Amino acid sequence: MNQTPYKRKIYLEDKPRAEAREEILAASRLTPEIEHLAVAEALGRVTAEPIFARVSMPHYHASAMDGIAVVAERTYQAHEQNPLFLKIGADFCFVDTGNAIPSPFNAVIMIEHVHVVDEETIEIIEPATPWQHIRPIGEDIVQEEMLFPQGHQLRPADLGVLLAAQQLVIPVVKKPVVAIIPTGNELVEASAALSSGKIIEFNGTVFSGFIKDWGGEPRLHSIVKDEPEKIKEVLLEAAETADIIVINAGSSAGRKDFTVHIIGELGEVYTHGVAARPGKPTVLGKINGKIVVGVPGYPVSAYLALEWFVQPLVCQYLGVPVPQRQKVTVKLGRRIVSSMGAEDFVRMNIGYVDGQFVANPLTRAAGVTMSYVRADGLLIVPPNIIGYEQGDFAEVELLRPLEEIKEAIVFSGSHDLTIDLLSSQLKRVRTDMKIVSSHVGSMAGIMAIRKGEAHVAGIHLLDPDTKQYNISYVRKLLAGQDVILYPFLKRKQGWILPKGNPLEISAVTDLVRTDANFVNRQKGAGTRILFDLLLKETGLEPEAITGYDREMFSHLAVAAEVNGDGNGAGLGIYPAAKAMGLDFVPVADEEYDLVMKRSFFESEHGRLLVEIIQSAAFREQVEKIGGYEVVGNAELKSLAD
Amino acid sequence: MNQTPYKRKIYLEDKPRAEAREEILAASRLTPEIEHLAVAEALGRVTAEPIFARVSMPHYHASAMDGIAVVAERTYQAHEQNPLFLKIGADFCFVDTGNAIPSPFNAVIMIEHVHVVDEETIEIIEPATPWQHIRPIGEDIVQEEMLFPQGHQLRPADLGVLLAAQQLVIPVVKKPVVAIIPTGNELVEASAALSSGKIIEFNGTVFSGFIKDWGGEPRLHSIVKDEPEKIKEVLLEAAETADIIVINAGSSAGRKDFTVHIIGELGEVYTHGVAARPGKPTVLGKINGKIVVGVPGYPVSAYLALEWFVQPLVCQYLGVPVPQRQKVTVKLGRRIVSSMGAEDFVRMNIGYVDGQFVANPLTRAAGVTMSYVRADGLLIVPPNIIGYEQGDFAEVELLRPLEEIKEAIVFSGSHDLTIDLLSSQLKRVRTDMKIVSSHVGSMAGIMAIRKGEAHVAGIHLLDPDTKQYNISYVRKLLAGQDVILYPFLKRKQGWILPKGNPLEISAVTDLVRTDANFVNRQKGAGTRILFDLLLKETGLEPEAITGYDREMFSHLAVAAEVNGDGNGAGLGIYPAAKAMGLDFVPVADEEYDLVMKRSFFESEHGRLLVEIIQSAAFREQVEKIGGYEVVGNAELKSLAD
Repeated sequence: MNQTPYKRKIYLEDKPRAEAREEILAASRLTPEIEHLAVAEALGRVTAEPIFARVSMPHYHASAMDGIAVVAERTYQAHEQNPLFLKIGADFCFVDTGNAIPSPFNAVIMIEHVHVVDEETIEIIEPATPWQHIRPIGEDIVQEEMLFPQGHQLRPADLGVLLAAQQLVIPVVKKPVVAIIPTGNELVEASAALSSGKIIEFNGTVFSGFIKDWGGEPRLHSIVKDEPEKIKEVLLEAAETADIIVINAGSSAGRKDFTVHIIGELGEVYTHGVAARPGKPTVLGKINGKIVVGVPGYPVSAYLALEWFVQPLVCQYLGVPVPQRQKVTVKLGRRIVSSMGAEDFVRMNIGYVDGQFVANPLTRAAGVTMSYVRADGLLIVPPNIIGYEQGDFAEVELLRPLEEIKEAIVFSGSHDLTIDLLSSQLKRVRTDMKIVSSHVGSMAGIMAIRKGEAHVAGIHLLDPDTKQYNISYVRKLLAGQDVILYPFLKRKQGWILPKGNPLEISAVTDLVRTDANFVNRQKGAGTRILFDLLLKETGLEPEAITGYDREMFSHLAVAAEVNGDGNGAGLGIYPAAKAMGLDFVPVADEEYDLVMKRSFFESEHGRLLVEIIQSAAFREQVEKIGGYEVVGNAELKSLAD
Repeated sequence: MNQTPYKRKIYLEDKPRAEAREEILAASRLTPEIEHLAVAEALGRVTAEPIFARVSMPHYHASAMDGIAVVAERTYQAHEQNPLFLKIGADFCFVDTGNAIPSPFNAVIMIEHVHVVDEETIEIIEPATPWQHIRPIGEDIVQEEMLFPQGHQLRPADLGVLLAAQQLVIPVVKKPVVAIIPTGNELVEASAALSSGKIIEFNGTVFSGFIKDWGGEPRLHSIVKDEPEKIKEVLLEAAETADIIVINAGSSAGRKDFTVHIIGELGEVYTHGVAARPGKPTVLGKINGKIVVGVPGYPVSAYLALEWFVQPLVCQYLGVPVPQRQKVTVKLGRRIVSSMGAEDFVRMNIGYVDGQFVANPLTRAAGVTMSYVRADGLLIVPPNIIGYEQGDFAEVELLRPLEEIKEAIVFSGSHDLTIDLLSSQLKRVRTDMKIVSSHVGSMAGIMAIRKGEAHVAGIHLLDPDTKQYNISYVRKLLAGQDVILYPFLKRKQGWILPKGNPLEISAVTDLVRTDANFVNRQKGAGTRILFDLLLKETGLEPEAITGYDREMFSHLAVAAEVNGDGNGAGLGIYPAAKAMGLDFVPVADEEYDLVMKRSFFESEHGRLLVEIIQSAAFREQVEKIGGYEVVGNAELKSLAD
């Protein structure tokens, strides 16, 4: 909160990302420093010069077999009908694989083809040809050959070749130092006590991790206040001691966004605003010969901007290409809208269902870090495309290994806290498997099964007519599909209320009576359908409820909103209330079942899932939470009409 | 060399690799140790337990925009025809993105939609809806949600989420300690002076690199002599202090291969010999609860065995899946023969030519480390397949990034030392490009162009009739193809001879006169064709030449063989002799040209190649070597009849 009047520059450029990148790469012409390292210390480092072999390997004529060394020309008479007897020392000597062949010998006979007569004599019945079973000098490495060019990132086996060629200390490119400067009055260190309006500074640690992964050396500065003079001082110091400078936040065009002005004052600005979302409010400039990248404050924007501009600078310094992510073609589960004239970076969940990759966008909000953490891939919508229709195929860059995506069980539907536990248990049994879940609500879960976008959907849908859970919905919405309904959990739904229930809420009418700040769930969520049913039974209209339109996507999110609001109220499951130390007034015992295609249910993954649900370990974990009963091993619910 | 009589067990098992692996994974049931690390130290480490959020992010109602905070219900009357004037403090306050929304405000209006009247008053013409532009508590992270399960390898952005959720110190799995024990009387440390029969111990450093890459902690022991008592002592000590033990060499069935006996004596042996090549002579056992992997001595066998058995053990300890390599389907340029009943791991060069991946096997010799270093991929021939025909398609696992393979210029044909320089220069200009060369000789180079397996072939083929280089061969062998012949180098061919030329060789007849140890080149090599021509002109038969059948694949390899043999002699280029300090007697000035398809010559890559050949920097480098003249910028040779 700030009471000063508003002064700002509202507009940013929309410079194409590639153009902005090429400009700074051309402007940054540092000569990389070289350091000399012992080979064992050089793993992952980048050669600064071509490296040539100092010796050959083998560096002598070596036996390629266990056997005897002979003079080939003296064995030419040997034949099955004419065995040749050789005397040790004079005619032959024993050699093992790798042994040097002593003069005058020039061939090796394998031990399997030799008959030992006595300690001094052997018999052979076949001649040897010159140089047989002898490794030529330099068979592996030839002295003076180029082992690696400059710009080669050293892998484990490369170190062996260097040692073998007697290159023991090698020139590698110094890791470029990247100064990371977090700015903002709202920032506090992670260890600080939190208060309203304060944000933990974590981007710096994330940037440091990226820089390390890319082969640079991060140097993380302490938090700098939003004071232009202080920021200038820190930037000038960084321009002396670092090779690349990253300054976080203040890069937009708001009244506290000093970055662009300061860079312009101390050096030059190349770009203010790139045609890419999120990440648009990026500043690119140079101070005293060092490139400065001003990245936006929102985490996802920041990570993308870092990748677009700082990774290429690090790679340019090292003399290596920018690594490319593996790509895969996916079918889009939803329509994706994009703006003309700008690239859109859409974080995607990808599932592998029925032999096809299916992808759905996660939230587009740049402030939602978890959307980046949870994403399996990035869909990059080019500037000249306004989006894709549902069902279109598109190429995405993978943020996780392909195998991890292929082995994941895709879970859709209603949110329940036990799904994470289930995933964790699954991973204990099979480290290469997990459950990827998206909380879209029961109805959307059913639709995901129908569209082949999920393996399993969790649903809890009360039929107002039959008073039965789930069965009628599955019958109707998945008619004609070979699906099963697996009874998973019974759980308690009820009012989630501030500690002590100050408004004394125990029924929907109490919400109206007290004008409580209700927190609702999204459309299609089983809990919302339950709430609507409660309203209908009471004869109330949605308009009577304050906050009816305030939609959250999970029970925990509802509880989090209620937490700290003395007038708050929500509807959700018991463990969500318990987790936040809130009050809970039960409303219904509901049946939370799993819908699956029969083919999945009967597959190896499906069987494993059921096995884990039925395990004592999982049941114990769930029942310890409270408010649950694992049904798990009952019969499938009948879907017959 | 060893004069003791021979005692050995000749046969090894042929156990399927997967079976052998499952056995040791089942036998190794260590409980991983946990350590607690500060988040910033935990990059790349693996979570030991599920980790839950301690606080929400945002942990307060935060403005999602720069603007003003208002009470939504008090703005409902605002309209273009009915502007509403609000007073600071009472009716609104200014907020920036991320600021906390103070009570009683419950909505934000973007600054763009606000008209500032004076320092205390603003005007709005549109109502706000409750909670608009306010980030709900937990929009990103909800307190108590599971952030990561156990077995999650932490990436940069994950660290941010942990800090934001106030998980500052987290439980990770300790890196499993892998003891690496090199054994062998023939081994010397890399810094030692080399003598015949001594081999530099480099596998230990390579293993350490692999273990680090896989997330373990290598502990490399000094070299242990081939003495059973000493080996026992070291193994028992390792079983106390390490989690996994690797012992290098002595794993086969020769007379000094003690490993299997010692493991059997100290613990139990599960496997001695796996059905996979190279890498068959592997021993798997257990001593005092720790798995021991005895890997073969030949480098390529050793690296493969390590990957097959040690990587899964490390991953099992960490609780993560074994990473899979990216795969790609390639067309095979040559026939590949494999043995029934065993898997074959064939190192492959892969080129991307005319939009297709084409792959050729490198040497199958397990002792040739460079074949592993140079390989782009591994073709794994299953045990029930006896191989593939030329032109078949097969899937290979990539050892390099796909993009690196796609951007490489594939060079085939005759060996020349300048090709590495050319590649190095190319990489200076475009870090994502390089030349991948295989030395197959001029004739095979032409065939590679014909079959679409290479972009460029280097050839030097003298036509005995026309006395012209290259033209007649290209006309005949590439008839009907749209190719060009680019004049690249003139270079000196001659006799490569021991220092001082003790045998006084200056003609092919001198080889016969002195019975010199001749070192020849492989069939199809231009140098061999030249030698055959010399023989023919002299009226000599190949049988007259000692060593005619001793074939090397490069000029340097010929020089390496001549080096140190007072009776040696070879035919090759001047710089090879010079590099090894050998004598050189010129025989011919030859024209070394480049054949390319016209489409490649005119492509971006082709133009870049020519540009670098014509650069002063490249010419200087080449002419500094001696024996060369870069032709480079002359006209293309005419191929018209």
